[in-house]
Amino acid sequence: MIEFITNVRVLYAHTDTMGVVSNVRYLEYFEAGRNEFLRKIGFPYTEMEKENIALPVIEANLKYISTAKYDDLIQIKAKINELPTVKIKILYELSVQDKLITTGFTIHSFINLKTFKPTRPPEKLIKLIKEII
Amino acid sequence: MIEFITNVRVLYAHTDTMGVVSNVRYLEYFEAGRNEFLRKIGFPYTEMEKENIALPVIEANLKYISTAKYDDLIQIKAKINELPTVKIKILYELSVQDKLITTGFTIHSFINLKTFKPTRPPEKLIKLIKEII
Amino acid sequence: MIEFITNVRVLYAHTDTMGVVSNVRYLEYFEAGRNEFLRKIGFPYTEMEKENIALPVIEANLKYISTAKYDDLIQIKAKINELPTVKIKILYELSVQDKLITTGFTIHSFINLKTFKPTRPPEKLIKLIKEII
Amino acid sequence: MIEFITNVRVLYAHTDTMGVVSNVRYLEYFEAGRNEFLRKIGFPYTEMEKENIALPVIEANLKYISTAKYDDLIQIKAKINELPTVKIKILYELSVQDKLITTGFTIHSFINLKTFKPTRPPEKLIKLIKEII
Repeated sequence: MIEFITNVRVLYAHTDTMGVVSNVRYLEYFEAGRNEFLRKIGFPYTEMEKENIALPVIEANLKYISTAKYDDLIQIKAKINELPTVKIKILYELSVQDKLITTGFTIHSFINLKTFKPTRPPEKLIKLIKEII
Repeated sequence: MIEFITNVRVLYAHTDTMGVVSNVRYLEYFEAGRNEFLRKIGFPYTEMEKENIALPVIEANLKYISTAKYDDLIQIKAKINELPTVKIKILYELSVQDKLITTGFTIHSFINLKTFKPTRPPEKLIKLIKEII
Repeated sequence: MIEFITNVRVLYAHTDTMGVVSNVRYLEYFEAGRNEFLRKIGFPYTEMEKENIALPVIEANLKYISTAKYDDLIQIKAKINELPTVKIKILYELSVQDKLITTGFTIHSFINLKTFKPTRPPEKLIKLIKEII
Repeated sequence: MIEFITNVRVLYAHTDTMGVVSNVRYLEYFEAGRNEFLRKIGFPYTEMEKENIALPVIEANLKYISTAKYDDLIQIKAKINELPTVKIKILYELSVQDKLITTGFTIHSFINLKTFKPTRPPEKLIKLIKEII
């Protein structure tokens, strides 16, 4: 199983009065990690859209273990442990200097952008994921 | 059990290219609901802070059932089903014109703002919650 | 000249490490004020869209005079001083308990949503604005 | 005069229903550019804070010339044209594949973090800026 890593620099705008990254910001970090994950395995999300498929989030879970503060460089690991069916589950581990700060997952359904109905994942995506899990 | 309701108007800035509210925005709606919930039961979060207690989110879960679009008026129901211990769990149900769009919960720990260590919930909060569950 | 007022409650998620509302959040408050302004004069933005007209922001200016903090209730005044041409300028004054905290304006162009070319403002909008300036 | 460049990848969460980056997001891109600018000239903002100095934004201006869409790589150029006094002005030029999309500036005052009163910029910062303008 291969993990894919993206880094995000914490801006002042990401933090709140407690002096740490706001809990509401992490789903955006998850998106940053997911976006680069799909690009790196060879199936960027823009290609998904060209095939008229969207991946709306249908569930998200976040566990806040520790905090990140302004100017920290957050390392976002994204990975997939199981083959997609009509859904796909992506897992995230965020850390700052090897200290784990947040973990979580998002579950997405494959939707046909013309009919807005559930659809099967592209064969190419299944093939690419088989190579890394 | 009593539910507390807050309304939020969807701005353009809340939506994304799919024409619906971005999944990343909902944790902010949860905060809006939680904020008014605490105010309405008689223990606004600012009072919590005056007692040197913070309630950082330690877990969040979101289930995206349907979508909201620009200018929709989202009704946010917040409720508590169980008495707080060292943690408190708040549940959310978001709907647009009686159509359920998102459900979820956040779990918070009670932290002493001077020592940053876990603490017990204020007696007054427990008393107020007993009255509504 | 009539001013239109909207209120926004400051969430934790709006603030930053300095303990005040982040400078990046104010354009969203401006949108909230603009949105209600258009609704109250009788031409909600959703109606604009139904007439295939969009109002993208082409310029924005913000002067940060004082600060707002968590749980403050920000009063947003929006007004128009001059009739729209191919552009429209909206002015904003934000205050907390009568203390002015931010002023600014946005300039928008009228765009035909089918051709994405500049267009003239709807006659009805001009008429409604004439009544209030 | 030297320009400093930072890149930001447009996420879905940055866009709105019009299919382009929301106008409210650009002040955050400005912050990303400013943050890296200060780091690259040798005076990261965290060092400013260690010297008990903050740089709150007192004015911001944005001109939206063209649009960016999901997955675009935005190039953020930040520069300074004049020596700081009690204020500092930073200019920004954002482009996608050499097409200019947004320009603007922010003006900041130097504030002593202990007294919250205006203060003079650090000598080291003036020296570093002299080298690049």
